[in-house]
Amino acid sequence: MAILLLVLDGLGDIRWEGKPTPLEEAHTPHMDRLAEKGAVGFHTTIGRGKVVGSDVGHLALFGYSLSHYPGRGPLEALGAGLELRPGEGAMRVNLATVEGGKVVDRRAGRPPTEVGKALEGLLTMEVDGFEFVYRHTTEHRGVLLIRGPGPVAEVEGNDPHREGLPYTYPRSQDKALEKALRKYLEKAHRLLEGAEVNRERAERGLKKANALLLRGFGRMKEVESFEEKHGIRGAAVAGGALYKGVARYVGLDVVEVEGATGDKNTDLEAKGRAAARLAGEYPFVFLHVKATDSFGHDGDYEGKKAFIEKVDRELMPLVEEAFSTIALTGDHSTPWALKGHSFHPVPLLIASKPCRRDRVKVFHEYACMEGGLGMMEAKDVLEVAKGLEGLQPKVGS
Amino acid sequence: MAILLLVLDGLGDIRWEGKPTPLEEAHTPHMDRLAEKGAVGFHTTIGRGKVVGSDVGHLALFGYSLSHYPGRGPLEALGAGLELRPGEGAMRVNLATVEGGKVVDRRAGRPPTEVGKALEGLLTMEVDGFEFVYRHTTEHRGVLLIRGPGPVAEVEGNDPHREGLPYTYPRSQDKALEKALRKYLEKAHRLLEGAEVNRERAERGLKKANALLLRGFGRMKEVESFEEKHGIRGAAVAGGALYKGVARYVGLDVVEVEGATGDKNTDLEAKGRAAARLAGEYPFVFLHVKATDSFGHDGDYEGKKAFIEKVDRELMPLVEEAFSTIALTGDHSTPWALKGHSFHPVPLLIASKPCRRDRVKVFHEYACMEGGLGMMEAKDVLEVAKGLEGLQPKVGS
Repeated sequence: MAILLLVLDGLGDIRWEGKPTPLEEAHTPHMDRLAEKGAVGFHTTIGRGKVVGSDVGHLALFGYSLSHYPGRGPLEALGAGLELRPGEGAMRVNLATVEGGKVVDRRAGRPPTEVGKALEGLLTMEVDGFEFVYRHTTEHRGVLLIRGPGPVAEVEGNDPHREGLPYTYPRSQDKALEKALRKYLEKAHRLLEGAEVNRERAERGLKKANALLLRGFGRMKEVESFEEKHGIRGAAVAGGALYKGVARYVGLDVVEVEGATGDKNTDLEAKGRAAARLAGEYPFVFLHVKATDSFGHDGDYEGKKAFIEKVDRELMPLVEEAFSTIALTGDHSTPWALKGHSFHPVPLLIASKPCRRDRVKVFHEYACMEGGLGMMEAKDVLEVAKGLEGLQPKVGS
Repeated sequence: MAILLLVLDGLGDIRWEGKPTPLEEAHTPHMDRLAEKGAVGFHTTIGRGKVVGSDVGHLALFGYSLSHYPGRGPLEALGAGLELRPGEGAMRVNLATVEGGKVVDRRAGRPPTEVGKALEGLLTMEVDGFEFVYRHTTEHRGVLLIRGPGPVAEVEGNDPHREGLPYTYPRSQDKALEKALRKYLEKAHRLLEGAEVNRERAERGLKKANALLLRGFGRMKEVESFEEKHGIRGAAVAGGALYKGVARYVGLDVVEVEGATGDKNTDLEAKGRAAARLAGEYPFVFLHVKATDSFGHDGDYEGKKAFIEKVDRELMPLVEEAFSTIALTGDHSTPWALKGHSFHPVPLLIASKPCRRDRVKVFHEYACMEGGLGMMEAKDVLEVAKGLEGLQPKVGS
């Protein structure tokens, strides 16, 4: 049998001005049945009061502490399918439009993904002993891998974070790297300017994707693998690059699922079927669903509620019998009324035959206050799941 | 808007021989309304089962661990208005009566504060390269600051802790300091013996305040300031020297309030008005009320209950609308039946618009068991308050 960790991104919410939470208001018979079979409570991500990004939240759910966080760059790069070795650097990239030395559009008019894909091949090169590898992801987004003769020094990005400011170059304590980066970006600008796809865009009155903006530098870290840490192999089903990246970072096998887009139109049934199939091959499966968080960021109460109902209807029936232990939770709270990540403890449901069922028979934030799990940190969720599966080695004798 | 941390010293209590707790029995409509608007639970100070002093309890509530505790001496000295630099030592002092080489009264007959104030000027001097600075506080109490050529070595005090024993001298590994301290105390004895105020006391048949008893040595530590740690400035309103001292130690601005005495007759309205006014200037205000603890130490059930009612009636209405987030708690429990500090988790109430309200609508120890906050450590109280104020930087991205 197997453990399912089902993460509905940004799930946690609060009652606001007379409205129940989206999870409370949503019609979720499958989740409620699971609550009846299990116990509920909260996890506090990395500690009471702390607000985390999805990357740190997921690392914590996989049992890793903040000291293992490599920064956003390497996780995005891994998610984009790049191979990174410890000491190599990675940054998040925007394709941007620069005119007359100024950043006139930080996202180059949000071109379709094909534009970036067509330009991708121009942007990988070696400069003065540094290797720069560009991989495009979606729309204006990409990642840059930086390999050097030794561990790559910290780089301060050149994204001005608003339009109309001069285009500048990244800074680093390593002056050789700083110089190489400048040469790389100047050459990239020339190559992009002359690229066929940009000439076509100019003819059609569209903004050229003619410059790179870098941010979110991080260095790949040596990290104990999920299997070394927990004694079991694991697989991951996720749409978004960041989630695939975090999964790869800890050594989960990322299984590509057609239709798993990481957005509001993701194919929940395809993801549920894939997870259920993996239950026969892996003792641990991580299944990620993104859109709950996106609706929270948008302040869309009805959207969040309806999407939770969709998960309950389309995904839950496919997994609820396939796993012997299910942990259903979020990676952080994204209350719709606050339109951003918050510190609020994240509702957590753990169901398994040998668990101590509590009296709570529904799954939502306020019912979780009455639950048997109480408050735990995210790093302990998998420990409890392993305990339920009989996978905890006895400490002592 | 701003955070209020309202500490009723030694608030926590227990049901005993059929009696409800003082907080449970007290008529507290304002605290109960706050409980209805917020969530309740407990903090366990520095961990389950631990018993703490008020100094350590407050440091924990400000988010500092035990490794930042400098000992009682420096905190009392800071509270008395002395300036201390890292490495300087401080000790708590009693003015005492010595006759025939014996300590006949450890408190010199509890003289009024004016006696000590009149003697204060005699007791600051330099001896063999060490500087001894005496500051009188109340009744028989004072503090001694010790400055040396380098960091001041640990000093073992000379307070015999009971009467009738010989007057001795403090010990130290630093023999130069030990010798200087002995010279200082001998000279202090001679000066006090000849002081006008002591001649008058002798004529009136009162005990002379003619010797110093030292205890509670501590060395000032370098500590990250409250603003560095939490990213916000803070102010403190307190009567007792120790509480002002702890507040100064972490870099809170201590605001003197006339009538704030730190005892049972303190002017609660003046303190409440001061705190409410500070809400407009500081994002964090610490408000300390001492007498709940004193009644607990005295075993005075009715006194503790009546004082809690007085806080509810006179202070609460002045602050409840002035702050966007209120954390109401104690620094430890002082059950009246035990007449001392205990390990019992301390009732905690946190109210703020974005908090998850629980179903509890009253504030006392046994209702807190049903609360939504569960058990948290004191160091996390401010983290949650910052989360409610949107003051937590996102960890990760």
